[in-house]
Amino acid sequence: MWKPDRQSKKPLYEQIADHLEKRIAYSEFPPGSLLPSERKLAEQLGVNRSTVILAFAELRSMGIIESRTGSGTRVSRTKWGATPKHTPNWNRYAEGGSFLPNLPFLRKIRDALSQDPSLIDFASGELAADLAPLDEIAALMREHHYTSYLGYDNPQGYIPLRQSLVDYLQKYRGIQTTESSIMITSGSQQSLYLITQCLLSPGDAVAIEDPSYCYSLPMFQSAGLRLFRLPIDQYGVHPEDIRELYKKHRIKMVFLNPNFQNPTGAVISSERREQLFSVASELGLPIVEDDPFSLTAFEGTAPAPLKSMDSNGNILYIGSFSKIAASGLRIGWMVAPNSIVQRLADARQQMDFGLSVIPQQVAAQFIKSDYFQPHLDRLQIQLQFKRDLLIESLRRELGDQISFVTPQGGLHLWCMLTPKVPDGKLLDEAIRRGVAFVPGSVYGSDSGFVRFTYARAKTEEIESGIAKFAEALHSLTD
Amino acid sequence: MWKPDRQSKKPLYEQIADHLEKRIAYSEFPPGSLLPSERKLAEQLGVNRSTVILAFAELRSMGIIESRTGSGTRVSRTKWGATPKHTPNWNRYAEGGSFLPNLPFLRKIRDALSQDPSLIDFASGELAADLAPLDEIAALMREHHYTSYLGYDNPQGYIPLRQSLVDYLQKYRGIQTTESSIMITSGSQQSLYLITQCLLSPGDAVAIEDPSYCYSLPMFQSAGLRLFRLPIDQYGVHPEDIRELYKKHRIKMVFLNPNFQNPTGAVISSERREQLFSVASELGLPIVEDDPFSLTAFEGTAPAPLKSMDSNGNILYIGSFSKIAASGLRIGWMVAPNSIVQRLADARQQMDFGLSVIPQQVAAQFIKSDYFQPHLDRLQIQLQFKRDLLIESLRRELGDQISFVTPQGGLHLWCMLTPKVPDGKLLDEAIRRGVAFVPGSVYGSDSGFVRFTYARAKTEEIESGIAKFAEALHSLTD
Ligand SMILES: Cc1ncc(COP(=O)(O)O)c(C=O)c1O
Ligand SMILES: Cc1ncc(COP(=O)(O)O)c(C=O)c1O
Repeated sequence: MWKPDRQSKKPLYEQIADHLEKRIAYSEFPPGSLLPSERKLAEQLGVNRSTVILAFAELRSMGIIESRTGSGTRVSRTKWGATPKHTPNWNRYAEGGSFLPNLPFLRKIRDALSQDPSLIDFASGELAADLAPLDEIAALMREHHYTSYLGYDNPQGYIPLRQSLVDYLQKYRGIQTTESSIMITSGSQQSLYLITQCLLSPGDAVAIEDPSYCYSLPMFQSAGLRLFRLPIDQYGVHPEDIRELYKKHRIKMVFLNPNFQNPTGAVISSERREQLFSVASELGLPIVEDDPFSLTAFEGTAPAPLKSMDSNGNILYIGSFSKIAASGLRIGWMVAPNSIVQRLADARQQMDFGLSVIPQQVAAQFIKSDYFQPHLDRLQIQLQFKRDLLIESLRRELGDQISFVTPQGGLHLWCMLTPKVPDGKLLDEAIRRGVAFVPGSVYGSDSGFVRFTYARAKTEEIESGIAKFAEALHSLTD
Repeated sequence: MWKPDRQSKKPLYEQIADHLEKRIAYSEFPPGSLLPSERKLAEQLGVNRSTVILAFAELRSMGIIESRTGSGTRVSRTKWGATPKHTPNWNRYAEGGSFLPNLPFLRKIRDALSQDPSLIDFASGELAADLAPLDEIAALMREHHYTSYLGYDNPQGYIPLRQSLVDYLQKYRGIQTTESSIMITSGSQQSLYLITQCLLSPGDAVAIEDPSYCYSLPMFQSAGLRLFRLPIDQYGVHPEDIRELYKKHRIKMVFLNPNFQNPTGAVISSERREQLFSVASELGLPIVEDDPFSLTAFEGTAPAPLKSMDSNGNILYIGSFSKIAASGLRIGWMVAPNSIVQRLADARQQMDFGLSVIPQQVAAQFIKSDYFQPHLDRLQIQLQFKRDLLIESLRRELGDQISFVTPQGGLHLWCMLTPKVPDGKLLDEAIRRGVAFVPGSVYGSDSGFVRFTYARAKTEEIESGIAKFAEALHSLTD
């Protein structure tokens, strides 16, 4: 993104005024539109607010912008010639459609991380560069000619990748299927999106875990679904709760993340899995099994997925490379009854015409390659190491002000804080001190919970990151 | 996809029965679900229908499937144990959501092409392998280390690609913008999807060209939009029609494809462009300018886009690599007022979490590279050559039974047939003879029009493909 040049002889405020004038002339900010606030621009450009104030004054004196107290700074409507031209009322358009904006906390975190790359990141739910198989992927890309054809791909996904996944699913997850019933998606995110958009209708009731990743997704509300909570403990949801919700609200679908749940790390016990299974098949109720973390299991293997016992076709299974290889690959998959896969692939063609062939080729090569199993072995050890480092740091800095259940896999540690402080204030204080985390309320829980991702921060940042977090917490409790 | 093994000693019907039994056991076809029809399965597997009938009989005798006349063949519900298990009513789910299925003609063409790769393809709107810069892309992938980080990308798109596009847009399309107001999408398709989903609401009226690519997209109806037609002639739409529609129906947006329009090849004249511009800015009406073909212009350069004159912010400009490089890259872009780009990027994060970084890196390298301009030069010559070959073949085979305006760019030739025959029958006859095209009604026109894509078929197939098409036509008129 553009930043003013501090070496230049031209004063910063003039550079900023010129830059904004240019963007206004390019109609990036059309007549009548709102400019970002002085505070926000100052943050984005890394300058003092007073510099932005000077730049705005310059543009105001040229008649390009107008400020009115209380309603911000807008591009002038009269500047551009005498004939009355009308810019569309873009604000009205931006309010169109049913898509709700992302949660304010998540937008704040995203903005903070993009503005300050030195922030210690316990917030992004993904692997650090040193845990991702970057060298392996680069090597595979050098070794193979990836660009056989590159036409519009089958919207259900690249066939060789689906074939590789047949073996992968059998070997690592005990799931039997054929390539006809696998669909490749842009990560689990797109699988969830397709399911909510194409299989459910506004007004339908669905059950989700509480807390859960799903709460962080306005997507469910955007689709007009009514959400009901399944409280979870260390062993996951209580199957009988599902029956209750079905009786009361005729829920149409259940969303579960059975292994190393995001954010709690909970693993559904094998007893409850069996009960879940009988409840679902008794009620003819589909379960969406979101399973991105199983292959991170620190010791032994993660429990078998519900899908591996599903002779009945109740489970829509979704998986992803994001948490075990690289989220920027954007490769996920869904295993579902054939008719459902067909339906989603058809709809998906209208959304994006399928995925790029190149990352699908890379992914197919990667899981078939000799790099894959050693990568997983290394990943498990390194994740466990980072988890331990995080836990030690928390114990040292916060002692009994913090409590948690140690996760046996996944990327996240879910903590309860004893001094109850407001979520938003804690996040602000932490960001100010150079560290980001996700407040628990994002996942539907009360204030006083936080999610730390240990996978993303650099190893050498973990200790100091937690020290900064502790300072932030203490600044609010002292 | 699985096919029976013709070398094997096991009879074909037994192989098929085993394969289906396996997929039923894997719950790809859950209890109660409908199997594909005998005819369809026979087509898919490349066997006689009688072989499928034998396989079904085998499965029926084992109690695995049940056939009832008139309602097809279903997986038996009682086979799987005595306790009553209930499979979700997947049919009901597949009818959920607002997503309409793709048009039957397009599904038929897609199925035919995937089942018979030897079909001569005048239907798919994309470049043949020999027109795509496959060697260049392979070379770039070998030369560059593409996997710097691979974390979740900015949902607005990879910044270096946006930066490359700033120069590209300026140089090739005369559009001035900065990377803050560019968004990278999964092709123009996703740009159109985001616009209809996030900026328009059910019931909104929009205007589209008639005929146009947009008619082929149930996406517009899925979003609940009311569509109004703008008839086009050789010089595009009539700007006054827009004013009329605005008065009558308060249209909220206009979708245009001003250069080498799909399917007609029409180019909006410069006089009409100016009128369009005044109407839009007088009414404060946004125009979506879909511009995938301009860089194919066979002679000279294509007219400047509306966006290049847009000091007012009325134009949402969308571009794509699909028609000038490779559709399987799935790289497109949108240039729009900043607030709109922000809004769409935020919503898009909930749909797919952004695009894979890898193809974005490839695309960024490609447009900056010395390969790009020579590729375009070659593409233009080769497309023109294929166009001429197609036209010669049509003249020879069909003489005055066919008429068209020779397109000066783009991938398509739009033809009117003098003997009026039903669209569907002509398509069936053509596919039976080994050639595919798109019936004009897909684009909203009456029977009697066809779209031939000259870019996709191999050069050596064009003549014989048109001969087959002529046979198909004559089989219906003789
Ligand atoms: C439980 C769960 N599901 C789905 C996702 C989406 O991941 P992706 O789309 O990258 O596969 C995440 C990411 O945080 C997750 O934690
Ligand atoms: C006019 C027009 N717009 C958009 C598209 C979608 O193309 P893509 O999503 O591959 O960029 C097409 C493809 O046929 C088209 O012809």
